Formats: sequence, structure tokens, C-alpha cells
Amino acid sequence: MTDPPDTTPDRRPGGRTARVRAQVLDAVRAELTEGGHEGLTMEGVATRAGVHRATVYRRWRDVGGLLVDVIDAAGETDWQPPDTGSLRGDLTALNREIQESLVARPSFAVALMAASFHSEQAARAQTRLWADRYAQCEVIVERAAGRGELPGRHTDARSLLITATAPLYHRLMLLRVDPDPRLPERAAEAAVLAATAGAFTVHGESEVRSP
Amino acid sequence: MTDPPDTTPDRRPGGRTARVRAQVLDAVRAELTEGGHEGLTMEGVATRAGVHRATVYRRWRDVGGLLVDVIDAAGETDWQPPDTGSLRGDLTALNREIQESLVARPSFAVALMAASFHSEQAARAQTRLWADRYAQCEVIVERAAGRGELPGRHTDARSLLITATAPLYHRLMLLRVDPDPRLPERAAEAAVLAATAGAFTVHGESEVRSP
Repeated sequence: MTDPPDTTPDRRPGGRTARVRAQVLDAVRAELTEGGHEGLTMEGVATRAGVHRATVYRRWRDVGGLLVDVIDAAGETDWQPPDTGSLRGDLTALNREIQESLVARPSFAVALMAASFHSEQAARAQTRLWADRYAQCEVIVERAAGRGELPGRHTDARSLLITATAPLYHRLMLLRVDPDPRLPERAAEAAVLAATAGAFTVHGESEVRSP
Repeated sequence: MTDPPDTTPDRRPGGRTARVRAQVLDAVRAELTEGGHEGLTMEGVATRAGVHRATVYRRWRDVGGLLVDVIDAAGETDWQPPDTGSLRGDLTALNREIQESLVARPSFAVALMAASFHSEQAARAQTRLWADRYAQCEVIVERAAGRGELPGRHTDARSLLITATAPLYHRLMLLRVDPDPRLPERAAEAAVLAATAGAFTVHGESEVRSP
């Protein structure tokens, strides 16, 4: 999680600002992962980051501000959805990534979701992140359609992706059952079979109107 | 939520005990629904219930004890899964119930889930409740199999039910999108199409071993 120490003098504008942000967000991730959002304090983050408390208060204001920024930062990484050559392969690979992030102990992903149940600010940031990630994943469905893997002219990509991925969150986060190593593939397979049977095919007017 | 006042003298053993529990749990539900679990206190519940604080402390010990009991009580109601005559109809009706409980504002169901992210005791009680509810719903799949709506000799009922219901929780609780009145039926339909295509059909050894 921690970037290598930067010993070069700042040349770019914002170099120091960016470095302080990286240090603080690394500290937020570590504190959240270890103690959940209930253990997150401005003081704890400043100490762990080795940054003046006044700087942390000035730039992030409160714990809600830290949560929002760490969630926003998660959306800034250059993550790309898997590209395996088949819809089933892509969804299985995506589900494996999701399962890994949820079963990690401690899990940064789970800590963020828990925080979003208790901070409106964090909830809004998390909602933006989810929306971005699902939008990024729509290319999986577009590629499948291009390969002729899907029936009809237009597929509701979001619904297909949610059908494939939701069972993982549901079982691991809400039902809290033990992770099943076959689940990523099985959930992907069920979504592919439903899609192939036309469950997400858009007909008529909505087809014309969809973006 | 509140039972009618009981003015008859207690005849059954435990009559008063049961009445005090009902009053206290009604108060817990009201406090949770209005203020979330963070606003839940032993004093607030005792005052609202009109029960001595000492009684509440003696019987429930702490807020965790109240949460566990209110979740356990949710599992004691004589809820029955819908029985509409078709798999698609049953799953749609089930999803409508789920959607209603999640979009209610304030929502007791959402307050309980939020609490379970912050209390290990509440999480365990919630996990038991989920397990019971999904076990109860397996009859939906058994009836569908009896009507010849499903392929193969044995269907993984739990996976089918989770595929049908998980998108509602995922969209409403995690993605926090606006509720779509067509979602209950669409999510049910996708699960039925996947099931019909064999997504949840159990083959080979696991068929023999399954209960």
C-alpha cells in the first residue's frame, strides 16, 4: 500500500501536496483496515502518516473528509476490467477479484462499506465509486455483444453485471457465509445463462432511448 | 408495531414476561427505525417502553443484547414465503416484499443491517435470521421442481434464491440507486431463465450427497 519514499526534490507543482495526500491516505487505509472506521481519528492518521495534525485538519477537516478522499482515491487508480476473450471468463475473473477483496482479513473494502452505513458523506462517495466501477465494466458486455455472445441488438449491461456480481456481496457481506472458491465462476455462469436466454435483452422503445 | 394494551390479568406462566419483552422490543424497533443503532440506548428504550431501567439491564444486559433479541424476534414471526403457483410469481412476490422493506423510510431492515456491521453479536443474530429465511424460502424451489418448472433431478435452491434476491439488496443497500418498480420482477425473471437453462442444476456426486 505504501509508495516508496520520495527523496527527490519537488519539481512539479503540487509535488509536495500530492505526496502528503499519498501519505495521509495510506495511513487512512491502514487505520481503517486495522480498526474499522470507528477507530479512525484525525490524530491517529496524522501520527501514522508523519504529517502535522494542523495539515490534516486544514485539508480534510474531519474523519468524514478523510473517508471521502480515500474512497475517491480508490476510483483514481488505473484499474481495468478483465479481458479474457469470453463473457464467462471476464465475469469469473471480475468475481474472483471481488471475492478476494471481500475475504481479505482485515478487508479495506469491507471497512469502507461499513463506514458508508454510518457517514452520509462516505455513502455518497461510495455510491460514486460503485457507479464508476460498474460503468467501467460495461465494456465487458460490449465486447461480448461484439463477439456475438449475446442475443438481440441491445443488452442492459448494468443489470447483467449486477446479476453476476451481487451474489458475492450478498453471501459474503450480508449472509456472512464462508467463501466458496467455486462461487465466482458459478455466479458468472448463472448470469451468462440468463443473458443468453434473453434476461437482459432490451426491446422496443427502451432500445432506441438507451445511450 | 405496538400490540394492543393487554388489560387481562396474566394467567399463562410467563404472561408478564412476554408482555414486557413485547413492549421493550417494540421500543427497540421504534428507536432503531428513527435513530439507527447509534442512537439506541438502554435508557431510551426503557423510557419509551415504560419499563424500569433495572428490568431492561437485567434481562438484556446491554445494547448488543437488545439488538440480538429484536433480530431473534423477527425470526419468530409466522412469516411464510409467497405461494402464487409459479416460480416466477413466487420470486417476484418475494422480491416485492424485500424491496418494500428496504425502501421504507425509515427502514427497520436497513437499521438492522447497519447495526450488524458494528456489533458482532448483532451480526451473528442477523446471520442466523438470514439462514432461517432462505431455508424457509427453499419450499418455493421445491414446489417449482414438483410442477416440472426446473430441469434435472436436483436444484441448488439456495443459489437460485440468492441470484433472484441479491440484486435488490445490492442496488438498494450498496449501490444506493433509486428503487425501480420493475426490479423485483426483472431480477426474478433473470433467476428463472438461469434456472431453466440449468444454472443451478446439481449433477453427479453432489446430487447424491445433498440433503
